[in-house]
Amino acid sequence: MKPTTLKGTRDFLPAEVRRRDYIFDIIRKHFRTFGYQPIETPVMEDLRTLTGKYGEEGDKLLFKVLNNGDFLNKASAADLAAKDSNKVIPQIAKRGLRYDLTVPFARYVVMHQNDLAFPFKRYAIMPVWRADRPQKGRYQEFYQCDADVVGSDSLLYEAELTQLLDAVFTELGLKAVIRLNNRKILAGLAEIAGMADNMMDMTIAIDKLDKIGEDGVVKELKERGADAGAVDVILQFLKTSNLDDVAPLLADSEVGKQGIAELQETFRLIKKHLSPNPSPEERGTKNRIEFDVTLARGLNYYTGAIYEVAVDTDAPGQGNIKMGSIAGGGRYADLTSIFGMKNMPGVGISFGAERIYDVLEELNLFPADASEDLQYLLVCLDDAALEHGFGLVSRLRARGVHADLYPSAAKLNKMMKYADQRGVPKVVIIGSEEVKTGKYSVKTMNSGDQHKIDELNL
Amino acid sequence: MKPTTLKGTRDFLPAEVRRRDYIFDIIRKHFRTFGYQPIETPVMEDLRTLTGKYGEEGDKLLFKVLNNGDFLNKASAADLAAKDSNKVIPQIAKRGLRYDLTVPFARYVVMHQNDLAFPFKRYAIMPVWRADRPQKGRYQEFYQCDADVVGSDSLLYEAELTQLLDAVFTELGLKAVIRLNNRKILAGLAEIAGMADNMMDMTIAIDKLDKIGEDGVVKELKERGADAGAVDVILQFLKTSNLDDVAPLLADSEVGKQGIAELQETFRLIKKHLSPNPSPEERGTKNRIEFDVTLARGLNYYTGAIYEVAVDTDAPGQGNIKMGSIAGGGRYADLTSIFGMKNMPGVGISFGAERIYDVLEELNLFPADASEDLQYLLVCLDDAALEHGFGLVSRLRARGVHADLYPSAAKLNKMMKYADQRGVPKVVIIGSEEVKTGKYSVKTMNSGDQHKIDELNL
Repeated sequence: MKPTTLKGTRDFLPAEVRRRDYIFDIIRKHFRTFGYQPIETPVMEDLRTLTGKYGEEGDKLLFKVLNNGDFLNKASAADLAAKDSNKVIPQIAKRGLRYDLTVPFARYVVMHQNDLAFPFKRYAIMPVWRADRPQKGRYQEFYQCDADVVGSDSLLYEAELTQLLDAVFTELGLKAVIRLNNRKILAGLAEIAGMADNMMDMTIAIDKLDKIGEDGVVKELKERGADAGAVDVILQFLKTSNLDDVAPLLADSEVGKQGIAELQETFRLIKKHLSPNPSPEERGTKNRIEFDVTLARGLNYYTGAIYEVAVDTDAPGQGNIKMGSIAGGGRYADLTSIFGMKNMPGVGISFGAERIYDVLEELNLFPADASEDLQYLLVCLDDAALEHGFGLVSRLRARGVHADLYPSAAKLNKMMKYADQRGVPKVVIIGSEEVKTGKYSVKTMNSGDQHKIDELNL
Repeated sequence: MKPTTLKGTRDFLPAEVRRRDYIFDIIRKHFRTFGYQPIETPVMEDLRTLTGKYGEEGDKLLFKVLNNGDFLNKASAADLAAKDSNKVIPQIAKRGLRYDLTVPFARYVVMHQNDLAFPFKRYAIMPVWRADRPQKGRYQEFYQCDADVVGSDSLLYEAELTQLLDAVFTELGLKAVIRLNNRKILAGLAEIAGMADNMMDMTIAIDKLDKIGEDGVVKELKERGADAGAVDVILQFLKTSNLDDVAPLLADSEVGKQGIAELQETFRLIKKHLSPNPSPEERGTKNRIEFDVTLARGLNYYTGAIYEVAVDTDAPGQGNIKMGSIAGGGRYADLTSIFGMKNMPGVGISFGAERIYDVLEELNLFPADASEDLQYLLVCLDDAALEHGFGLVSRLRARGVHADLYPSAAKLNKMMKYADQRGVPKVVIIGSEEVKTGKYSVKTMNSGDQHKIDELNL
């Protein structure tokens, strides 16, 4: 059998693992600096925990794990004979692979509520599984990187998470545009436009503004039941670009005014405290943080602030990147009532690590040393040198130097080719002269330069 | 529905994740220092890659993932009617969860052979799944931490991996006894004892010496077909405790002599180069590295050196630990021929992270700061202080200080209780006086001491 991986899954070569870890490490570092705590949940969840949480389509995309042993024994003969797959699933599979990190987090909070201090700030960087049709950039097994705080409705967290987004993209060297809106503002607009009952239709149309333009939105709004008055109100709304202009439009909506007040407070905090207080000159080279009245994002779930981050295509050198959202999130009024626990509001963000990887690759933003952390490869020209080299590599490693030794006295060409394949920046060449003097020939692979160096200077 | 985790799987609280990461980080650090490179393979493998690789029992313990969509459609109606679970499996499940890290590694080496430089040194720290009956200390989802080098039969690697085991357990503060043997020595003994054809029987009996004593081994050997002469030879062999005494016993066995020569060379290298060259006084407080003629370990797979590491119960304070192997490994002549690629010998080790966790917990060897990495919690006595506190926590985080802020001006008692639950070592108390002077009251939670500290000294 010719070995293969399953479609939608991937092997990672060492350099790829390191570059992925470079991203995960930066995200994790800032999660921790901001006081988020790591949790872990199992890959396999009780299928009843997962089923029904992601809509009918989501249920289909869940990977189900077959019960072990004689799993058909307890299945209904009639359902098997009818080949009724959907009916048979719960009879032969009680486990599923997690589909996201949010539902397992909700289960976790409910199960461990007595062991947690609220507000509880958690992060998780873990893979999830979806039986989506694989395509470029979409996998059946991929990572999510989530930070959430639950048990508080303080707006300080909205500002904090914006700072966190800013800190991560700043360290990644990627200029991002962080867009904010508030679901209550959209609810207010729906109210004013007389579309409170079909707010979803309204936001679906609004959300497409980027793609289909104003005329397209008007057409879609009409198709979705907006009358001429509603269309006018909505168009006027879409033309506003700052919060102060939106406020008068929503003066008659309580929920709308509340949304504006929340977002104004969030922006006030961000502007006053955005670390590390960049000067105006610096700000031009940094992430942009903007109000976006057209931002809609998973409305069923979110109830307050919503975030979405994209590559800033106005920033120098980033203009040609075609990539959707690279991070996002928002506030929700209720995380856990699906599992019987009330009053657990929260707010969270999620980084799209797989897309961030593709962007950093395309913009050549990975640092050179993100791909390989070996510092020295020792190559030895004869057996006595090899014995000496083994002692040297042992002492280097004991000092914490990342070092490796080619395991035989092979031809120099062959060993240098190996060094090249390993991507090691420096090669230590050891022959009888080096053994005698303790001065090693160190070749820098990039430049070809070669110098004699003492052990302690390696 | 009351939410629950599946039997044999676990949630981890933040302090547990951190202590687990403490172990993984130390193992990973030394893997990298020694030049091992990270790879990742998918959690789901083609079931054909996994089936038949772990024996009949192993096949039963594989978790199989149900095909998506109308999975029963293509299944045989007759097999379904007969409820023949084993026959139906391949018809409805083409995916399985990985059972160990070795078979996926073999598949990986074959698939990516043109992208890898040999000798290829890889590590992986990833979970695996087995449908074993869950019991104390045995889980259905657990981590393996493996380092292997393939594509070389140099004995330098046997010595290097011993150094690596020593380095990890030294940094963990755990006194370990690292036992070495060589499969060729056991093969030689089987030859001399006339048991070459039932070497497995011989080694199963020998392996039990610790548990059933000499008399028990004799009884078992006889039951397994050893004649009186064989028993005599084997007993004499078991009484030897160093390689020099074993050598004459195996003088008539070529394979036995080779095993002795290999192990002698390995010990020579270890003794000469074991980093960081501890003095004799230090050595007493360090890991022991010993030849163990009774060490058998998974003989079907290993063909040369074998390792097994246990807690050193002779070391001060470690005498009461009841725990089996905490790490192990060995050399194999052939990793990849199951996937059609010949001549790929290697040697590897694996750390039992779950058991190491239990041991460190029992011996109280986790450092205090392994459980929580938050440095400061800021608590604010009124709303003006909270506004000030948000600025302070923003600036601290921008400097890389791990800091958090209680999100409202609550009662001091309540906030201090939260600080205690979070396990944070220091609390910064901010009231109107602190806002005015910029000198913050910092309380050390352990001692209760309280001092005034400037922002820049936080």
